[in-house]
Amino acid sequence: MPLDVSPPAEAGDDAAVILSRWSSLAAPALRAAVETLHPWPARMAAYAFGWAGRDGRPSGGSPATGGKGLRPALVLLCAGAAGAPADSALAGAVAVELVHAFSLVHDDIMDGDERRRHRASVWRAYGVGPAILTGDALLALAMATLARVPGPGAAAAMERLSATLIELVHGQAEDIAFEGRPWTGRDAVTVEEYVAMAEAKTGALLGCAAAIGCLLGGGPPERAERIAVMGRQLGLAFQMTDDLLGIWGDPSVTGKPASSDLRRGKKTLPVLAALESGTPAARRLEEVLAAPLTGEEELELARNLIEDAGGRRRTRERAAACLRRALHVLHAEGVGGPAAEDLAVLFGLLLDRAR
Amino acid sequence: MPLDVSPPAEAGDDAAVILSRWSSLAAPALRAAVETLHPWPARMAAYAFGWAGRDGRPSGGSPATGGKGLRPALVLLCAGAAGAPADSALAGAVAVELVHAFSLVHDDIMDGDERRRHRASVWRAYGVGPAILTGDALLALAMATLARVPGPGAAAAMERLSATLIELVHGQAEDIAFEGRPWTGRDAVTVEEYVAMAEAKTGALLGCAAAIGCLLGGGPPERAERIAVMGRQLGLAFQMTDDLLGIWGDPSVTGKPASSDLRRGKKTLPVLAALESGTPAARRLEEVLAAPLTGEEELELARNLIEDAGGRRRTRERAAACLRRALHVLHAEGVGGPAAEDLAVLFGLLLDRAR
Repeated sequence: MPLDVSPPAEAGDDAAVILSRWSSLAAPALRAAVETLHPWPARMAAYAFGWAGRDGRPSGGSPATGGKGLRPALVLLCAGAAGAPADSALAGAVAVELVHAFSLVHDDIMDGDERRRHRASVWRAYGVGPAILTGDALLALAMATLARVPGPGAAAAMERLSATLIELVHGQAEDIAFEGRPWTGRDAVTVEEYVAMAEAKTGALLGCAAAIGCLLGGGPPERAERIAVMGRQLGLAFQMTDDLLGIWGDPSVTGKPASSDLRRGKKTLPVLAALESGTPAARRLEEVLAAPLTGEEELELARNLIEDAGGRRRTRERAAACLRRALHVLHAEGVGGPAAEDLAVLFGLLLDRAR
Repeated sequence: MPLDVSPPAEAGDDAAVILSRWSSLAAPALRAAVETLHPWPARMAAYAFGWAGRDGRPSGGSPATGGKGLRPALVLLCAGAAGAPADSALAGAVAVELVHAFSLVHDDIMDGDERRRHRASVWRAYGVGPAILTGDALLALAMATLARVPGPGAAAAMERLSATLIELVHGQAEDIAFEGRPWTGRDAVTVEEYVAMAEAKTGALLGCAAAIGCLLGGGPPERAERIAVMGRQLGLAFQMTDDLLGIWGDPSVTGKPASSDLRRGKKTLPVLAALESGTPAARRLEEVLAAPLTGEEELELARNLIEDAGGRRRTRERAAACLRRALHVLHAEGVGGPAAEDLAVLFGLLLDRAR
């Protein structure tokens, strides 16, 4: 059954509704793809997606909040923006969501992250070896899903997806390398290095989602390139708001411990922007960061110093600037109608997450 | 510079010379591809391929023995067999070798293998997280290398490679599952289950190498399917001789401890075939395998019982039967000339490895 070009956008539709509507279009295809895997990695993949508990029993899954479903929604909306029915890009939506899941499963092992979406991460639930296999299975399935699509747009989409994988590896390599670098001095991570890492680690896949939607929707390659810029800016904004949540986010919403990024000494934009501010608060922050932050009082002090040094404000401003650039592409490309309205609502959501 | 259809086969050329000749055609392209990665995973990948030591300094690499270079050689020979110049399939040779390296790096973590090619495995040299990243980088590079190839054969080659990845995951999942199953009784691993696992884990990638060579060489998809069967049988024979080496191989040649598979209680064909023989030696072997084998005397007893129960002979016979099937495809397809001669020499090498 062919899907509508774009489901009608009701007045007052909010981003969560848009996300769940679009990702519910992709969800059955995603589940069907996962079920073709060997039963063991299939079961671990179902856990990774939140469809099942550790024992394999079905679970309701987490609600479509916090950007969940953003990538498939972006693929399908960009196919719609190219004037094509959404189901023309369904395989792309599935592939991009599989690649996203792959990167979360493997990154959680590399980063030692024990929690993900309010539950044990895959490696904590099943062990490191099985989690490696799960990630490999998800990635293999992504490639196989896209490789089966006929037509000229599919080859370009595959080239885009594989180039994106190279960028994801690059971003993850930089992110890990940042951990071993100091907060201050000659070898300190700069804000611009951080932005380049975030663009590779988070921007690339959202750029890929947008480009693949456009390509599978029959859009020309040059347009897909421009639409990809929109996705990359969206991804950067997403990562920046994630960084805000990693310091000031509510644990009941983020599913991670409060100030988890600060506890782990992660090089994120609010801290780097604060340190580069040259303010007295920045100098005091340098001293506080010289040793690992453990106690609640230390963490609160660090949070306040980051805020006083303008780290929170500057991160918000940069995220907003990324979203403006994304909107600019949308307008310059002459994307209109319900797809443009839905995209604009999603852009708003990304900023709202970290208010 | 276009390469010859097939370098001339000198009289007395042996398999090692053929392998190193063909893989030396692919090696510069492989190195150039790896150098496009982020420097850190690129360095670990160079270690994985044996081009560099742990410290990143160039090393001579291990000689082309024991099947090293078999996959790129197969890709290029099958392009030649399709009547095309070898360089038409160069990207395929690079992609297949990258996928092979990816699977070794990740499987070594999952299997806890500490040694590979006479050196520490990648995870032992750099840690688990960095080894995961290295494997991901190798796989991403494989897909990107093949995705950039233009022409109609390339899309079919990409579909084949991604389907092969799904099979590799399937085979690895089964291999791990076998470890938890008993040697005897209702839940014992059967010889046929073993063969299905080995076909997925080892046969699929050699089948893929043959098919991709044919496809990129301009061969029709139906022929690529038949040539893939040749590769799969070759892969099965390779795995079976590997199993013989895992029990009776010389550590100075295999780079692994003597009888390493027996020490680890791995379910391999010689043992499974021995147990299914119904001989008195099989019944005695069951008793010996009831507890882990640790001492040298126990290991020697087990080796002798496997041999007495016909496990060694039956494994050799099955490997020879696989090679006959592979040769049959070669003849049925009417492959002649130097490419066919080289392939036949390679087939012989596979049997010779375990004499």
